Order: sequence, then C-alpha cells, then structure tokens
Amino acid sequence: MPTSFASAQLALDLVGVFVFALSGGLVAVKKRFDLFGVLVLACAAALGGGIVRDLLIGDIPPVGISDWRLLTAAALGGLVTFLFHPGVERITRFVRVLDAAGLGAFAVAGSLKAVTTPGVSPVAAVLVGVITAVGGGVVRDVLAGQVPEVLRRELYAVPAMLGSVVVVVAAQLGSLQDWVLWTAAGVVFALRMIAVRLHLNAPTPLRSNPL
Amino acid sequence: MPTSFASAQLALDLVGVFVFALSGGLVAVKKRFDLFGVLVLACAAALGGGIVRDLLIGDIPPVGISDWRLLTAAALGGLVTFLFHPGVERITRFVRVLDAAGLGAFAVAGSLKAVTTPGVSPVAAVLVGVITAVGGGVVRDVLAGQVPEVLRRELYAVPAMLGSVVVVVAAQLGSLQDWVLWTAAGVVFALRMIAVRLHLNAPTPLRSNPL
Amino acid sequence: MPTSFASAQLALDLVGVFVFALSGGLVAVKKRFDLFGVLVLACAAALGGGIVRDLLIGDIPPVGISDWRLLTAAALGGLVTFLFHPGVERITRFVRVLDAAGLGAFAVAGSLKAVTTPGVSPVAAVLVGVITAVGGGVVRDVLAGQVPEVLRRELYAVPAMLGSVVVVVAAQLGSLQDWVLWTAAGVVFALRMIAVRLHLNAPTPLRSNPL
Repeated sequence: MPTSFASAQLALDLVGVFVFALSGGLVAVKKRFDLFGVLVLACAAALGGGIVRDLLIGDIPPVGISDWRLLTAAALGGLVTFLFHPGVERITRFVRVLDAAGLGAFAVAGSLKAVTTPGVSPVAAVLVGVITAVGGGVVRDVLAGQVPEVLRRELYAVPAMLGSVVVVVAAQLGSLQDWVLWTAAGVVFALRMIAVRLHLNAPTPLRSNPL
Repeated sequence: MPTSFASAQLALDLVGVFVFALSGGLVAVKKRFDLFGVLVLACAAALGGGIVRDLLIGDIPPVGISDWRLLTAAALGGLVTFLFHPGVERITRFVRVLDAAGLGAFAVAGSLKAVTTPGVSPVAAVLVGVITAVGGGVVRDVLAGQVPEVLRRELYAVPAMLGSVVVVVAAQLGSLQDWVLWTAAGVVFALRMIAVRLHLNAPTPLRSNPL
Repeated sequence: MPTSFASAQLALDLVGVFVFALSGGLVAVKKRFDLFGVLVLACAAALGGGIVRDLLIGDIPPVGISDWRLLTAAALGGLVTFLFHPGVERITRFVRVLDAAGLGAFAVAGSLKAVTTPGVSPVAAVLVGVITAVGGGVVRDVLAGQVPEVLRRELYAVPAMLGSVVVVVAAQLGSLQDWVLWTAAGVVFALRMIAVRLHLNAPTPLRSNPL
C-alpha cells in the first residue's frame, strides 16, 4: 500500500474497530454475558470484518490479530461498554450514529486496502470493502444467536457498497487522495443515517407463505 | 490447473453458484428479508463454499469475489427468487433437484481444483470437495438462524464425498478427463436424488436423553 | 517449525482433536443428528480451531484437512460418541475434564505453531493460541444453534490466554522446551478445572435491561 495512505488507513481502521467494539459489547451486555464474554464479543465484532478482509486479500497474519493498536481499541470498546452500559444503553441512538460511522470507516478502509493490494481486481476490491464493513456485525450477530442485521435492516449493505465503489473508481482514475477517502466515508455515513431516520427499507417480497 | 479443465471447472462452478443462489434466496424470502437481504443471502449461499475452498487451498483472492461471471450468476439467482418466489416456492420439488445438481457440481469443481493445485494431498482434495459442496448451504443456514441441513438431512455429505473420491482417484490414475468429471457430478446428483426420494437417512443414535 | 517440537506439536494436536471430537459428537447426539451429522459436527469441533489457526498464519492447506492422523482422530472421536453415547453422557463430568485437557492442548499447540512461524508477532501468537483453543467449540455451537460456551461460561478463554502467554514468553526468552510446553498445557487444564469446580465466573454486568 502506498505509504501516503497508511495514516488514513490506520485512522479509518481505528474508528471502525472502536465503534464496532461498542456495538458488540452492547449486544453481549444485553445477553447477560460475563466480563470476558463481553470482551470476546466486542473483539469479534470489532476485528472480525478486518480479519476476513485480510484473509481474502492474503495479508497474513491479519492486522486484526497482530496490530496492538487495533487490539487495544477493541478491548477498550468492550471494557467501556461493560463498565458504562446503562449509559451506553440510554444512548442507543448515539450508538446507531457510531455504527453508521463504523460502516463508513470500514467500507473505505477495506476497499482502500484491497484496491492497493496487487492482484486484486476492482470488482473484488468493492466486495472486500462491503465484506469488511458488514463482516464484524455478522460475526457479532451469529455468535450472539440472532439473525444478522445486514439481512433484515434498513439499507445497510448498499451505502457500504457505494462507498467502496467511490474508492475503487478513484483508484482506477489515479485520483485516490485523502479527501476522497474521508468524503467516501462521510457519504456512507450520511446515506446510512438517512436510511435509519426515514426507516428506508429495500422492497420486501410481495407475498410469502411463512415457513 | 491444466487449461484443459478450465472450461469444465467454470461450467461446474456456474451451475453450482446459480442453483445455490436460488436456494439461498428462497430461504431469505421465507424469512421475509428485504430485497438486499435476499441478494446477500443468495450470494452467501452461492459463493460461500467456493470462497472457503479457495482460502483452504490458497487461491487468493477467491474467485467467488473476483470472477464477475460467478458474481453475476449469484446475483441473478437471488433476483430471480425475489421476483418469482411464489413460482419458485411452488416448484420446491424442482429446487431440490437443482440443489442436488449443485451438490454434484460443487463436489466435482472443488475436488478438481484442489487436486490440481500443487501441494494439496489427495485426502485434503477430497475434503475440500466436500467442504465446497456443503459449505454454501452451511453459510446460508447459519446466517438464516437454522441448523445446517447437512447435519440433519438425508444423506447429503456422503454423495459429495463419493464424487470427490472419484475425481481424486481419477487424478491419481492420470485419467482425469471431462467425461469423468461430468459422470462424477452425475453420480452425486443421482445418489442425492435417491436419498431424497426414499427418505434415506443415516442411522440415528439408538436412544438419547433430550438436552 | 523446529523439528524438535514436531512431536510435541503432533501429540498436543492429537489430544485436542480427539477430545473436542467427543464434545462435538455429544452435542450432535443430544440434538438427534444422524450418524453423518454426528461425524460432521465431531470433525468440525475437532478440526475447526486448527483450521482457523492455519488460515491465520498462512499454513495452506491447513493440517486439519491434510493430515490423516488428525482426521482419523476426529472421525474416531465422533464414532465413539455415536456408538457409546449413553456411556459418554453418563460420564459428562469426565467429558468436561477432557474438554479442559483439549483447551490446554490446543492453546499450547496453537501458540507454539504461531510463535515458530516467521512473521507472526508475539501478540498475534498469543491470540492465535486462544483462537485455536476456543475456535472448535465456537464452530460446534454455532452449527448446533446454541450460543458459544466461551461467551457464557465460567472462565474459559482466560486460562487459554495464560497458557499461550507462557509459551510465547518462553519462546521470546529462547527457553522453549518440551517440559515448558507440557507444563503450560497442564496449567491451562488446572485453571480451567478449578473454574469448573468452584463455578468461578467473570463478573457480569451490574444490571441490564433485557432486550
């Protein structure tokens, strides 16, 4: 990866890891897991998406288990949730804001890392961005025994995909710059927040016989 | 992989991807997911097995995220299910036929790719074939919150294993040819259909105290 | 990996694989899966942790699908559970002892393999040890549709982490020897058994509103 993006990459990763650790910790608190269950679920939610990304593009071992800064951010997020969860619960609305921020950060961080990795096609880079963004939430929900939000919620994967497309197109055009990255993350964030506010959902099947 | 099998490999992959996308989309429709939930589950079911296969044998990035033909087939399967699901539901029996075809296609595609990859032992190639064949269904069921069919259904993994063994033995004997591949896929399909028709199940534990 | 540890590595792997196969098979029997469901879940529980470990450190294909000795041990564990499950159920207490032994064996086997792999940092090696130790149980529980024990049980991940730390510190100090490995595994086993006996749990959140 060009050194010029290393700091943007790290900043985006840290933002995403911390807020997804909060979301994972909150789910664990609600399920009445103990301290270590909260920490484990916070770390799985925070680091899962990035670990899958690195496996898919061949960055072994994944930064999610080797970079102490990301690990610290994940554990810190879990600890904060454990200690202050009544506060965190009251600010559920704020958590959704953070979750949208994490979605944007991870979509951009994932597609940026993929598109700057030799041998990864543009199409693959977009998908890696989406998987990075939604992966941690999927791991969190599967471990906690609930259907992943990406499958049943207001537009969730679509903003992540749009942000990834912006990053990959910019890379193809040779105009990948810091402000493009942050703008892309901001667009994902804004679209996701609009979907949450307006309860925008994708269309559902016209009719269906329950299983 | 020898070029001579590239077209058989692609054809088998495409068949498997499309029919597993139908099966994933159908489960999503029944769970009342929205359009994007249907597409995500269809793609996860269709591409999951192949992605795990490629991670296990070191083909990075996996074709499941980099080959636009497979991605298109997966998305198309999801879209078809979303648009025509009452029809698809009525033809559930036909879907089981397709599912058996996918099982055969993926068992052969997986073991073929593994056995022609340097450094993969014959035993590993057989297992990679089985994992390719059943992996997408496992991903689909775990995401949808149901126990994977491979664990509770009529003989499912066994036909896949037999097909993989045929491919790997043929490779060892130096007699890997197109007709062997399609025959192996046909045998898996036939055995699976016989198991479905006759409700053949493996023996269950003699007695068990419920948890 | 230094040849000198190859036999310890294999012995630790075999112990862990066999006892986790028993635990996976037992869960499958209780869920009334058929013979192949029992074998599949036993193999997934037994080999899942090691496969994830090898993916994370880049040992492709993972030994969990290529080493016939591990595969045989896993299948044997599943078969034993299927045939003798009333006996195995009666000895649930003994199974918990075996599970603790598997935790110790896999924590040490995982961190040992990681720390002796070039390019894996000490922090990553510790985490790989923990993931190896708890990974199989997570796969088992997710497939069987129950919340993973590591999230809701008495101290489970912590003993595994302590054992991994011992191995990695010993490696850093250049004093990695067979007796250190077996002692580390023994310490994990002892701590886990103490936690089981005393029903030691990590603290739970002070209060929580159910979801």
